[in-house]
Amino acid sequence: MTDSKPDLQPLRVGGLLYPNFELLDLFGPLEMFSLLGANGARLQLIAETAGPVASAMGGDGPLGPKALADYGFADAPPLDVLLIPGGFGTIPQLENPAMLDFLRARAKDTAIIASVCTGSALLARAGLLDGLRATSNKQFFELARAQSSRVHWVERARWVDAGQFVTSSGVSAGTDMALGLIARLLGEAVAEQVAAAAEYTWHRDADADPFADRLNELAHALAAPVTKEEPKG
Amino acid sequence: MTDSKPDLQPLRVGGLLYPNFELLDLFGPLEMFSLLGANGARLQLIAETAGPVASAMGGDGPLGPKALADYGFADAPPLDVLLIPGGFGTIPQLENPAMLDFLRARAKDTAIIASVCTGSALLARAGLLDGLRATSNKQFFELARAQSSRVHWVERARWVDAGQFVTSSGVSAGTDMALGLIARLLGEAVAEQVAAAAEYTWHRDADADPFADRLNELAHALAAPVTKEEPKG
Repeated sequence: MTDSKPDLQPLRVGGLLYPNFELLDLFGPLEMFSLLGANGARLQLIAETAGPVASAMGGDGPLGPKALADYGFADAPPLDVLLIPGGFGTIPQLENPAMLDFLRARAKDTAIIASVCTGSALLARAGLLDGLRATSNKQFFELARAQSSRVHWVERARWVDAGQFVTSSGVSAGTDMALGLIARLLGEAVAEQVAAAAEYTWHRDADADPFADRLNELAHALAAPVTKEEPKG
Repeated sequence: MTDSKPDLQPLRVGGLLYPNFELLDLFGPLEMFSLLGANGARLQLIAETAGPVASAMGGDGPLGPKALADYGFADAPPLDVLLIPGGFGTIPQLENPAMLDFLRARAKDTAIIASVCTGSALLARAGLLDGLRATSNKQFFELARAQSSRVHWVERARWVDAGQFVTSSGVSAGTDMALGLIARLLGEAVAEQVAAAAEYTWHRDADADPFADRLNELAHALAAPVTKEEPKG
């Protein structure tokens, strides 16, 4: 509901869908970009193939909430920002070469690739976070860490801005990260305006993490390790 | 990611879609219900007719993010909770008899009907909030107020729980309301667990409203009144 300056090109923002993605991981951040108005951001949804993609919500099989991918990997347009959600669907995607290849290809020409929750596990598996600082979902942190020992994993952070790659903690942390990106790209005042339009109290300090003390609570609750470390490349 | 007690029947939660709904209005609250696990809540999306429904996000015409309605009004299953989002799409729905009739029909057998943002304008227009306390989006409050003078409109509230009808302020306030509903239905501890799983800092005081001072900022910015008061049937 906020108009941005008309002389700026709209940001081309793509949201990545895959089966059993966590809806709020994606639509929290996309909502913030959408509040820049049509002149501020253009949003598209992308999946391996265009069409309906079921989210992880509700576990109601074929009747759980679905979103619709406008584009497949093969025909998705160029982007300025690519948003990668997490969710239990992350785990099978770690073994999906089409997903990892898409991420590697987009890393060559996308200014910002931002992940929420376990989405950073995919970036790490693709080798894109090597040598960088990054974070992930707190209660399931090991899923990300197990993908690469070459990443400087940050346990206590709401989000980590490493330049081209920006990673956030779980679910709602992505909304704060998105406002952080808007502040970086368009200024703090615009981010404030967007947050107010959403009646959202922005947690603007990327280093303040109220959930870091719950590290791996969910991973520890599972009987077996969530994933096996595999030799890289 | 949180399992509820297996001896409870899953809550049947329906999310209402209409063209140009605000995605976070719907998926913020639905995310919270989804974190009750498959045994805790079953989520469905409902629209006037089943199929893709474009959200208000991005203003990118036919390529803006879309969600998929599992059911139409005619075949939607019984629900325990019906969630009504807001967004600019609310305005044409105020003149849609199929929408208003659906809301009136569901009010007869749905335990909780909860709205986010301008969604309360639809409930007011349907006459369902007469005599009750209710709130709405802050920057666009007049849209709701103009629908009925028989509602006790509350300007300063994150959300208002009037029993069967629960209304929240704009966009992200719906997430806090959903946690309030989960607390009412399943206990505070479950709501806390859900919020932690989403790494969300719940604003649990329904009366604490950081955005009330921005009342009608957006409505005032428009040249003309947002809607005309019409005589009620």
